[in-house]
Amino acid sequence: MKTRLEADSIGILEVPADAYYGVQSLRAKHNFPITSRPLHPEFIKSIVILKKAAALTNENAGELSSEVSEAICTACDEILEGKLFDQFIVDAIQGGAGTSANMNANEVIANRADELLGGTKGSYQHVHPNDHVNMAQSTNDIIPSAGKLTVLKLLVPLFRELERLLNALLEKSKQFDHILKMGRTQLQDAVPMRLGQSFHAYASVIQRDIHRLENAQKEMYRLNMGGTAIGTAINVSHSYLQHICPKIAELTGLPFASADDLFDATQNLDGFVTVSSSLKTCAVNLSKLCNDLRLLSSGPRTGFAEITLPPKQNGSSIMPGKINPVIPEVVSQVAFNIIGNDCTITMAAEAGQLELNAFEPVVFYNLFESIETLTSAVQTLTDNCILGITANEKHCEELVDASVGISTALCPTIGYKPSAEIAKESLKTGIPVRKLVIEKGLLCPSEADVLLNPFTMTEPQ
Amino acid sequence: MKTRLEADSIGILEVPADAYYGVQSLRAKHNFPITSRPLHPEFIKSIVILKKAAALTNENAGELSSEVSEAICTACDEILEGKLFDQFIVDAIQGGAGTSANMNANEVIANRADELLGGTKGSYQHVHPNDHVNMAQSTNDIIPSAGKLTVLKLLVPLFRELERLLNALLEKSKQFDHILKMGRTQLQDAVPMRLGQSFHAYASVIQRDIHRLENAQKEMYRLNMGGTAIGTAINVSHSYLQHICPKIAELTGLPFASADDLFDATQNLDGFVTVSSSLKTCAVNLSKLCNDLRLLSSGPRTGFAEITLPPKQNGSSIMPGKINPVIPEVVSQVAFNIIGNDCTITMAAEAGQLELNAFEPVVFYNLFESIETLTSAVQTLTDNCILGITANEKHCEELVDASVGISTALCPTIGYKPSAEIAKESLKTGIPVRKLVIEKGLLCPSEADVLLNPFTMTEPQ
Amino acid sequence: MKTRLEADSIGILEVPADAYYGVQSLRAKHNFPITSRPLHPEFIKSIVILKKAAALTNENAGELSSEVSEAICTACDEILEGKLFDQFIVDAIQGGAGTSANMNANEVIANRADELLGGTKGSYQHVHPNDHVNMAQSTNDIIPSAGKLTVLKLLVPLFRELERLLNALLEKSKQFDHILKMGRTQLQDAVPMRLGQSFHAYASVIQRDIHRLENAQKEMYRLNMGGTAIGTAINVSHSYLQHICPKIAELTGLPFASADDLFDATQNLDGFVTVSSSLKTCAVNLSKLCNDLRLLSSGPRTGFAEITLPPKQNGSSIMPGKINPVIPEVVSQVAFNIIGNDCTITMAAEAGQLELNAFEPVVFYNLFESIETLTSAVQTLTDNCILGITANEKHCEELVDASVGISTALCPTIGYKPSAEIAKESLKTGIPVRKLVIEKGLLCPSEADVLLNPFTMTEPQ
Amino acid sequence: MKTRLEADSIGILEVPADAYYGVQSLRAKHNFPITSRPLHPEFIKSIVILKKAAALTNENAGELSSEVSEAICTACDEILEGKLFDQFIVDAIQGGAGTSANMNANEVIANRADELLGGTKGSYQHVHPNDHVNMAQSTNDIIPSAGKLTVLKLLVPLFRELERLLNALLEKSKQFDHILKMGRTQLQDAVPMRLGQSFHAYASVIQRDIHRLENAQKEMYRLNMGGTAIGTAINVSHSYLQHICPKIAELTGLPFASADDLFDATQNLDGFVTVSSSLKTCAVNLSKLCNDLRLLSSGPRTGFAEITLPPKQNGSSIMPGKINPVIPEVVSQVAFNIIGNDCTITMAAEAGQLELNAFEPVVFYNLFESIETLTSAVQTLTDNCILGITANEKHCEELVDASVGISTALCPTIGYKPSAEIAKESLKTGIPVRKLVIEKGLLCPSEADVLLNPFTMTEPQ
Repeated sequence: MKTRLEADSIGILEVPADAYYGVQSLRAKHNFPITSRPLHPEFIKSIVILKKAAALTNENAGELSSEVSEAICTACDEILEGKLFDQFIVDAIQGGAGTSANMNANEVIANRADELLGGTKGSYQHVHPNDHVNMAQSTNDIIPSAGKLTVLKLLVPLFRELERLLNALLEKSKQFDHILKMGRTQLQDAVPMRLGQSFHAYASVIQRDIHRLENAQKEMYRLNMGGTAIGTAINVSHSYLQHICPKIAELTGLPFASADDLFDATQNLDGFVTVSSSLKTCAVNLSKLCNDLRLLSSGPRTGFAEITLPPKQNGSSIMPGKINPVIPEVVSQVAFNIIGNDCTITMAAEAGQLELNAFEPVVFYNLFESIETLTSAVQTLTDNCILGITANEKHCEELVDASVGISTALCPTIGYKPSAEIAKESLKTGIPVRKLVIEKGLLCPSEADVLLNPFTMTEPQ
Repeated sequence: MKTRLEADSIGILEVPADAYYGVQSLRAKHNFPITSRPLHPEFIKSIVILKKAAALTNENAGELSSEVSEAICTACDEILEGKLFDQFIVDAIQGGAGTSANMNANEVIANRADELLGGTKGSYQHVHPNDHVNMAQSTNDIIPSAGKLTVLKLLVPLFRELERLLNALLEKSKQFDHILKMGRTQLQDAVPMRLGQSFHAYASVIQRDIHRLENAQKEMYRLNMGGTAIGTAINVSHSYLQHICPKIAELTGLPFASADDLFDATQNLDGFVTVSSSLKTCAVNLSKLCNDLRLLSSGPRTGFAEITLPPKQNGSSIMPGKINPVIPEVVSQVAFNIIGNDCTITMAAEAGQLELNAFEPVVFYNLFESIETLTSAVQTLTDNCILGITANEKHCEELVDASVGISTALCPTIGYKPSAEIAKESLKTGIPVRKLVIEKGLLCPSEADVLLNPFTMTEPQ
Repeated sequence: MKTRLEADSIGILEVPADAYYGVQSLRAKHNFPITSRPLHPEFIKSIVILKKAAALTNENAGELSSEVSEAICTACDEILEGKLFDQFIVDAIQGGAGTSANMNANEVIANRADELLGGTKGSYQHVHPNDHVNMAQSTNDIIPSAGKLTVLKLLVPLFRELERLLNALLEKSKQFDHILKMGRTQLQDAVPMRLGQSFHAYASVIQRDIHRLENAQKEMYRLNMGGTAIGTAINVSHSYLQHICPKIAELTGLPFASADDLFDATQNLDGFVTVSSSLKTCAVNLSKLCNDLRLLSSGPRTGFAEITLPPKQNGSSIMPGKINPVIPEVVSQVAFNIIGNDCTITMAAEAGQLELNAFEPVVFYNLFESIETLTSAVQTLTDNCILGITANEKHCEELVDASVGISTALCPTIGYKPSAEIAKESLKTGIPVRKLVIEKGLLCPSEADVLLNPFTMTEPQ
Repeated sequence: MKTRLEADSIGILEVPADAYYGVQSLRAKHNFPITSRPLHPEFIKSIVILKKAAALTNENAGELSSEVSEAICTACDEILEGKLFDQFIVDAIQGGAGTSANMNANEVIANRADELLGGTKGSYQHVHPNDHVNMAQSTNDIIPSAGKLTVLKLLVPLFRELERLLNALLEKSKQFDHILKMGRTQLQDAVPMRLGQSFHAYASVIQRDIHRLENAQKEMYRLNMGGTAIGTAINVSHSYLQHICPKIAELTGLPFASADDLFDATQNLDGFVTVSSSLKTCAVNLSKLCNDLRLLSSGPRTGFAEITLPPKQNGSSIMPGKINPVIPEVVSQVAFNIIGNDCTITMAAEAGQLELNAFEPVVFYNLFESIETLTSAVQTLTDNCILGITANEKHCEELVDASVGISTALCPTIGYKPSAEIAKESLKTGIPVRKLVIEKGLLCPSEADVLLNPFTMTEPQ
């Protein structure tokens, strides 16, 4: 392999001659052989958008020549179109608060821009990674800001999928509205309800999750761009400080604004903790919902069997004909993973020291995964499970008839204690509650018909 | 000990003759010898407020006689004044979704109300725990609703203490605004800043925590009262369903309203997860702040020693004269505990099944502790630490002078790479940056004076 | 209240005249109003045992007079007999790595010993808290060592209760060995098994938990006593260093020995993390077991209903006759709490800095709770649940007959795919597998009888 | 793309004509678009080793023809040599307890073996995925067993790297044994120690981690192979049951044996929780160590600066000459990630139901990542940090001289209280402790020389 020599403060290193990355990227690759996973593509794009915004703002401030600014912007646009991604060689989990990710971008953009202006790679003749591409920036404002752009980008499909799930659940709640079934608390027979009400409750909680995530994502709109190293805005022009966030807003179409306190915004990661917490809460709700689906569809012969999930694949390599609730199962697994990710994000955020939190890379590694896997899980849940659920209406009805939960409705009329005795006797003897209550002269048949109608028990009369 | 006999569906049990609690409370005490800690007093009060509200609402609905309602209300008022707390004998962590807590309240209130009407304990002659005290209620609406009332009650002092902390930090940020010090990223010398800016950043993050908790607490205002067992509102009169939440709002002065979906509100605990997440995020920020305080006050001779925390107690049983940062240490411990509590709450919320989550007791056990210990930790942090912090101004200045971080300011003028060489040489030789840059003819003395003035580096010029 | 004046490095404070604690305890009480919970009584006793061991060892080394040593030992014995516990006034969660707990013990013992020698409280005339009671010790060796003694003490009843649970499960596995039932994977009908096999599996996992905890507790036997402040053994005589751990072993009857590296033993808390991890793993297994019990006993009419848990209390305040699985529910809650505690312990252990981990108090707060609540949970699980479980033999059999899981046994003979078709047809039509397979000429009746005997499917033939 | 048609119980699907995977793999791919990450290559190999062992054992038992067995073994060997990995198309996180992973292996091996015997893909003419490749197996014994093989395989390099780290730390402890420095507790000056002792403590804790992991890995040697679906060993020959584990031991060279209770081994994942817990504990210790390195190397001018970490890359994109502790930072991030993974694994293990835990895929996803990233982190820590650490001996000495921690050594001679006064006065006035103590006539100069020699304070005399 042909190489060129590049130097930094540490010394000289051989870099592949045709690489757009440079010495600092290469050192980072050697230092952090951690996950073998690259930076998230959307995160790379977010950094690049910020670089472009910075070049334009610096140019406008009179700090950067039009020629260099244009070359930088062209290089950025190429990357945004999907080129040069193989030049981003640093590991997703890295020390140094993302300096390596930032420098990888600086080097790739500088070399490409320099090339556009006639330079040779590694010479940084016209465009320098630090002096031009990184002008008025620091890793410490670029990286958290890029993280926020990425979170916002990745949340878009999540909201779309959550809305689709919400609609699917509402649709099912209407479809199943007439189906009488037993409610269960603590897995024990409780009182009658309608299957549609179950699905409406699922819809309600998802609605709340959407709302909560919308609230959380607002924290992503405040950037510390311009704060540079620690929030003092050292090496930043007045014009840049004023215009950088509006410029980013313009390029992305999102309402970005400068944080009120640039020191705070540089050193604290609580905004990401907030997003992660909302994802975690959504995961909790989804996993509970999916466990319910597994319970309700348990069987086919020895379980609750009130609903049937659409069969999506053979359930067993040894048990013929077995169908398993594989979609709810994968959703719960994603939920467990998101909850663990939240734990990691929490610890990393807590570990910040003084003017910076150096642990952003592992925060992003986990947070991006949480958002994306949640999106995928919700999508497959809607399409491969919820939409195809069918109800076993007859079995639901039989279970209501077999149970004694309707005895609850007797309490206001005959009292809790006599009702309990009826329930116990019915359970023991198998004689229906209605029959017992009439036999014992506690109600006349017409009263019993009104009081013990399970359908009327399912909502306020 | 004199006893009376009481029976329930399980059988007959000897209850102390003078006990206001009854057979169900006693069984629960035997079944759950878990923590030896009673229900939280504010939680008991919350249940009792709900019982009173229910009695009044039932009376108004024509379901409960004035006589019984008044007796119940009197009994409730006695408890709210602090009486009979020793009659609440069930463990804070209990199986059964809080049925034991609810029945303990029902029994105590019933026996006391019955006594007021001339009955003897255990006879439930005039007032029955289930038929009257628990009328139109279920454990499944009482317990989560009481949890919400309690959270709101306990949050009041937390907000007050967070506001006090916020003000103390802002005060310090003003007091220290003129003190120049080195900023540090990744514990390495970065660029100059002012000590007041550090404290302003701490104030900013606390302000955000307050805002986040205010948002989260809104979820506590929606109650599932009236949903009874599973959300169907079985055994509830129309009038009750309409008036119970307004009545609770009236008694508490808080804007309670009925949940839109009573099934959802009965089975999902995500509101509590949200509050816990906000507490956790606040804990993360406080622990980071406290670790900073420990770093900045490290020494007195071999550490950073930029600030001095007020000495609050001897630091060591063996090392004379040692003073330790005990207040920040206790805050971090509280933070770790809150983060662990959030993990428990998350798992318990995820484990709900179908129409109910039976694990509310452990959620409350942890959530109440999180709120209260956070309140205490913030209070002692403000009073015993923040307000008494002093700055070691001279030492801060010496450190700025000794460092080479000011070389950052050279970059826009002489470029990143030459600046790096200056910095390295200064570090190696001990020759100040200013001197080197002039000697090498990179800047003339007057330029150097402007460019290398550390004070002007601390904010946009 | 009559007071006396006591001074420390911070200044002078009024201490209640008759208090055995002194100025340092009182300052700590003011500094740490966190949980309102005192130090664990067994933890106090552990500290006191170490104090006694130190006095005896110092006396033997010729560093402490017999008179003072004897007075200290008498004071210690009084506390070990249960006296003076109200003099331990510091909060369980405290800053300062437990210095306050140590000084509280030093002050109480010193004042009582001094009193025994004719001194007045607060004078420390004959016995000084630091110079005598704390001789050759530091908070930094006393507190982690006392933590280890306490863990070992609290584990004794846990082992006893786990053994009792193990035996109860084995007993049930024998009692239910003949009962045929359907196995379920992913809550879907799988293949037949025997109910006794379920309980034997539960016993097997508990056996492994006991073994794991035994392994973990070995880490508790290595103490850093003698290391004093940071492991250098400053202010410790040779004789003391040699004899302190054997003396503790003698007083406790446990095989304590000195840690190989006193610096390591002073600064790292991984031993406690290990114990907590083993408790967590046990909690995971118990919660899974308890969830199984809730599934198997679900019903009585609309669930699996294969077993019946002993009824322990009314299940509902509104639903008459309802019985809930309250004991398994409380065990799962304890498990969730232990898992959260493990999270806290993990974070606290990670947060140690240099020669000490200052966060031991919150580690112990959580670890002691984990052990004790697990002990209580296991006890109530055995006594109030496992021992009283009955099997619904007939229903188990009916479910086996209704299911098509036996078709698995056809695979080796007729192949997976044809077996799957049989299974599907049987499920759809309700025609038993045996009948279908004969009708289709795949097996003759006698072959079918052998192959489709569910009982022979439950173990290797 | 040319396709073939394949059918399963769900229906017919178009499969790429040249694919070795089949219909079930393809369905799984559609059902689980979760992480876009494939099964871990070592996990695939582990499954394949088990398939080979099963074929050989079945052949030996007379259940499988030599021809088919040999074809299966050849196909397996090809995969073990690195071929056909692109045919494993299912996502790492999948529902169904790993059925899709197992079937993907079954289909690839069957198609390849069938091809070797002259069949065409998808025909399964000679070799059937279920009847032959999966003979006497179930997903439920294959997947957890393959997980255990994989863990053991991945642990080998981890042990190697931990040993290297241990040796590097021991080497440094010798190299730095003569360097006097201040010990710090709670970041406050404590008493003198030697830098070598710090590194020896780090070595000691790593030694313990190795021991703990060795203990944990023993749990991986017990397999449930032969238990098939739920532990009953249905469809397994006596010979197979007896010989399958010895055959796996033979093929791998590892001491595998059959679990004592196959039901337990099929349904409980506590062995994986145990390994994860040990990794977590190691992560805790490493992160603490790395935080210490960052503290000790803080500076260069405004921190502790007792050691210098080898510079590995430019520390900043804006601050010239800045070097950051990037290696310790990446290790802490890996540690946080492992701790979060442990949380996920814990939840997934707890969520098992009855005869199976369906959440193994997410357990493995996290556990394999934990092991591998820990291995990488330890490797880069040793090579890029520990081995290159240098001590700033002179600065260490200056800090000892400047501090008053040596006053601790006065206590046994002049008492704690007078020593505290000396320490306070020295701190306040800057007059050295030695001078003060002589001036005040508390010690004569020669006594002071003996007592206040910091070097002798660093170990028992």
